[in-house]
Amino acid sequence: MSDFFNAPPAPRLPLLTRAGCALTREIEVLDQHGQQRAIHIPDERPLTLYVDKRELVTLMTLGAEPELLALGYLRNQRLIDSVEQVLSVTADWDVNAVAVRTRAGIEDFERKTAQRVVTTGCGQGTVFGDMMDALQATQLPDASTARIAQSTLHGMLEVMRQQDSVHRKAGSVHGCALFRGTEKLMFIEDVGRHNAIDTIAGWMWMHGVPGADKVFYTTGRLTSEMVMKSAQIGVPIIVSRNGVTAMGHEMASRLGMTLFGRAANRHFICYTGFERFDSEPEPQRPSMRVVAG
Amino acid sequence: MSDFFNAPPAPRLPLLTRAGCALTREIEVLDQHGQQRAIHIPDERPLTLYVDKRELVTLMTLGAEPELLALGYLRNQRLIDSVEQVLSVTADWDVNAVAVRTRAGIEDFERKTAQRVVTTGCGQGTVFGDMMDALQATQLPDASTARIAQSTLHGMLEVMRQQDSVHRKAGSVHGCALFRGTEKLMFIEDVGRHNAIDTIAGWMWMHGVPGADKVFYTTGRLTSEMVMKSAQIGVPIIVSRNGVTAMGHEMASRLGMTLFGRAANRHFICYTGFERFDSEPEPQRPSMRVVAG
Repeated sequence: MSDFFNAPPAPRLPLLTRAGCALTREIEVLDQHGQQRAIHIPDERPLTLYVDKRELVTLMTLGAEPELLALGYLRNQRLIDSVEQVLSVTADWDVNAVAVRTRAGIEDFERKTAQRVVTTGCGQGTVFGDMMDALQATQLPDASTARIAQSTLHGMLEVMRQQDSVHRKAGSVHGCALFRGTEKLMFIEDVGRHNAIDTIAGWMWMHGVPGADKVFYTTGRLTSEMVMKSAQIGVPIIVSRNGVTAMGHEMASRLGMTLFGRAANRHFICYTGFERFDSEPEPQRPSMRVVAG
Repeated sequence: MSDFFNAPPAPRLPLLTRAGCALTREIEVLDQHGQQRAIHIPDERPLTLYVDKRELVTLMTLGAEPELLALGYLRNQRLIDSVEQVLSVTADWDVNAVAVRTRAGIEDFERKTAQRVVTTGCGQGTVFGDMMDALQATQLPDASTARIAQSTLHGMLEVMRQQDSVHRKAGSVHGCALFRGTEKLMFIEDVGRHNAIDTIAGWMWMHGVPGADKVFYTTGRLTSEMVMKSAQIGVPIIVSRNGVTAMGHEMASRLGMTLFGRAANRHFICYTGFERFDSEPEPQRPSMRVVAG
């Protein structure tokens, strides 16, 4: 995690609590053989976000990093422009709440949050037109500087294969990671893909980590919203174990990003942005047949 | 689809357009062998919902049933109490919009939609406290009347296994279905689980179909929001190909619902609500070994 140590500290970083909590819970289940047994499931919980004592939103989260999630949420919703505006972030699982204090308040808070009701779907939409405008202004590095080689991609996937995880123990969560080359800088799991990438956005802000030379990995699908969020944090290359939707594909093409999907073991599909990719084709092995002599 | 034909027509049903659209798109991709080829991906698109000429929300949807999605969205957000309040639903893909006209307006529209901003997360949260209050009032049938037998569950899973789907062709979508016994009444796929269940909610309203004797099937995870939505449409039994989170589990337990997960082929786990389930245990087969004589 060299970014963590080497990055110059942001001049005025917020104070964070470190409120951890158990990520899985044991329950009794019944299977097809009529047998009762214990399994682990992910321990999702509500987290209500307050900004300067005003209630903003309740997120369902696994709860590993409530402070970074709160920061990243405010960043990706563009309610706060820079981490220096934040004085402190305090999470408290006794009341399932995280309180953000800003140094000087959020300008136009009422208007910014009121606008969202018009175009935000509950678990469904996002601030679409608004977001596209903002993305036009996003500066992503060009393909000559931000690239990925096939060997690096394979190395990343091997790191993810070996990653210990809540998913392995309990299923039903999404994982996201931030890579520089084959070095995993940050890994987080949550019940939703959005929380996971928001947490990474918060971590990047907190440690002054830029996105231009990074690759974003997710177990989830590449929908338009995931592509948008990756663009917002300045990361031009996304790798998913899952597939892509047409809006995600179109948005990434327009923004000059590179998307890989169905990426696991030594397999992948590059959906768009071939120009950032140094292909090192694997030989096609003919299917082996042993013929008895 | 006997409910479709036999159910008494609701006294004043809204007029619907039938605006279909292509559900997949072909794109050129590059694979690990350096080969370029064409694949299909799901064709997600934005759909802006207007109610009595006021813009309410933009949903990302596959677009198979925009009118039913709009109806179900208004139902599950509890913005409209009964389908009889709706005069017409008109979808138009030339402008990516669906317009709902009500007979007498929505009472308190400004307050109801303004409230949502406080507790609604973009792609993340839901109206949590508010929703729990509403769920307390939800009448689900008791376990003596609404039950499921293991053979019925197996039958449902076999129907789903044979279902032709966008997922099979293009991946990256979720499917939901409504069953009565092993009879599939409605099947819908969308880019998000929420849109899919909302569309089913709209279909049930449109055709006056009650939830009490039905089973809801989803390919997606059983998070709290999916359990909430199933309770809202009155369906007490949910079957998922995927897993469960702790909030989903807890909420279903409290509401007396039954959840099955990891359900495919002849496997499943019953997470909660065992009392609605008639177990017909399968024999545990010892793993077969052929020993050379």
